[in-house]
Amino acid sequence: MKDTSVAFQGEAGAYSELAAFESFGEGISTLPCPAFEDVFTAVNSGECSYGLLPVENSLAGSIHRNYDLMLRHDLNIVREYHLRVSHCLLALPGVKLEDVKSVHSHPQALAQCETNLANLGVKKVAEADTAGSARQLRQDGDLNKAVLASSRAAEVYDLEILAEHMEDNQVNYTRFLALSLEPLKVKEPEAGEYKTSVVFSLMNKPGALFKALSVFALRDIDLTKIESRPIPGQLWEYMFYVDFAGHANAQNCKRALDHLGELAPFLRLLGSYPRHYIDT
Amino acid sequence: MKDTSVAFQGEAGAYSELAAFESFGEGISTLPCPAFEDVFTAVNSGECSYGLLPVENSLAGSIHRNYDLMLRHDLNIVREYHLRVSHCLLALPGVKLEDVKSVHSHPQALAQCETNLANLGVKKVAEADTAGSARQLRQDGDLNKAVLASSRAAEVYDLEILAEHMEDNQVNYTRFLALSLEPLKVKEPEAGEYKTSVVFSLMNKPGALFKALSVFALRDIDLTKIESRPIPGQLWEYMFYVDFAGHANAQNCKRALDHLGELAPFLRLLGSYPRHYIDT
Repeated sequence: MKDTSVAFQGEAGAYSELAAFESFGEGISTLPCPAFEDVFTAVNSGECSYGLLPVENSLAGSIHRNYDLMLRHDLNIVREYHLRVSHCLLALPGVKLEDVKSVHSHPQALAQCETNLANLGVKKVAEADTAGSARQLRQDGDLNKAVLASSRAAEVYDLEILAEHMEDNQVNYTRFLALSLEPLKVKEPEAGEYKTSVVFSLMNKPGALFKALSVFALRDIDLTKIESRPIPGQLWEYMFYVDFAGHANAQNCKRALDHLGELAPFLRLLGSYPRHYIDT
Repeated sequence: MKDTSVAFQGEAGAYSELAAFESFGEGISTLPCPAFEDVFTAVNSGECSYGLLPVENSLAGSIHRNYDLMLRHDLNIVREYHLRVSHCLLALPGVKLEDVKSVHSHPQALAQCETNLANLGVKKVAEADTAGSARQLRQDGDLNKAVLASSRAAEVYDLEILAEHMEDNQVNYTRFLALSLEPLKVKEPEAGEYKTSVVFSLMNKPGALFKALSVFALRDIDLTKIESRPIPGQLWEYMFYVDFAGHANAQNCKRALDHLGELAPFLRLLGSYPRHYIDT
């Protein structure tokens, strides 16, 4: 039995599974889950050691639903990973580019490859997900069909990569967070490069956010993400997602969070984890 | 000829078209555009008086691509509108719920209605968009098929609404911004409730954002949205999307923006427009 098991949403060969292998190494086992909720269940029940969730895409923005689920469950962020999303054009072995009449994939992948697909003059066909369209192609055995999916999907479903980087905008990456039951144990929180994620609410008063951010600015703590989100149904309150550089157990960060707790009606520490720089 | 014409991305009956009619009234004409880029072209060329763009969904987050396009084009935000997204189950006239064997729509719509569709025990089939699946159903004439789309799509394609609010999470709304060649002319910028949208960049130094926000806090100007976004390829710089309460020509806001200009290497005023409260 493998020591590290990672639950992800999607089918075998999904971008989330690719991120799991790139982040944790090839020696892990993975568990495909139909829904994001199931990823949390797999970790809560002890079936998997980690759950890996996409939280933000550089073109499409933050995935609020996964922040909502993090707030509903009591798991800890222990790792981040930035996956460079490369849509590959996959076909059955032996198929040539000129044989391809239709390209199947998730509508978002089709949209991200719009110009390149138009140049090929192929028909675009929407399917439920990228890896699922690769699995379907293997079942169909259709020699005039190609799909847009990850390089991993090519391996999983024994397809050939006709072209890589089919996306029109090459700066396409997705940020993943790994969650586990226990927070990451760190001996020296002052050393190394860590990031910490928190969620807090503020009353909608002028200057409320400014005061909240002062707890970081006064201690020279660098913010790496900030996003406000109206709390649905509570029009005058906002939630803020903030990531900052540093470990929550490092003294200056600990003091900043204590200070933030004085100002925020709601504050939740989601976890501290090693910083992963985007590969460019 | 109708005075007001609004370009939107998608097919007739799309949620964006519904937002155009709800926001501008039924007396307008609309122009469906295949891509978001085409919406800008329609306004730049004078073909349409307005372009209406979704910029944020309460479940899915901000649509960065449309912010990118706003930065590439020199148009002005003149209006905002919050559309309550209600996925309707549509079928051909006479079809009953128990006749429905499969439900077709965009994967995101199918995902948002996951639990309700599971209760119906129907097969889910992905298509490229919601309105397109309604058009397709009208062409097919299939009596065992239903689609998830807007109530407007029911009118456009002469379908019947079998059920409304099929979404599992009822707090689902999309924020739209209307763009035009000229900024909105306002006689009394100090009166009425306006919002202003700006985009600016900051060097990634501790406290840089805190200083930038001080220009609003020191003048008691209320922020309604803030979002940071790493500038792809420039890892040490960030863009910030900020909306605040007030008109850019009101004296305190004008001073705040002048002050912000001293701190931000890049600053772009996207527009001032009447505030639209979310209906809940």
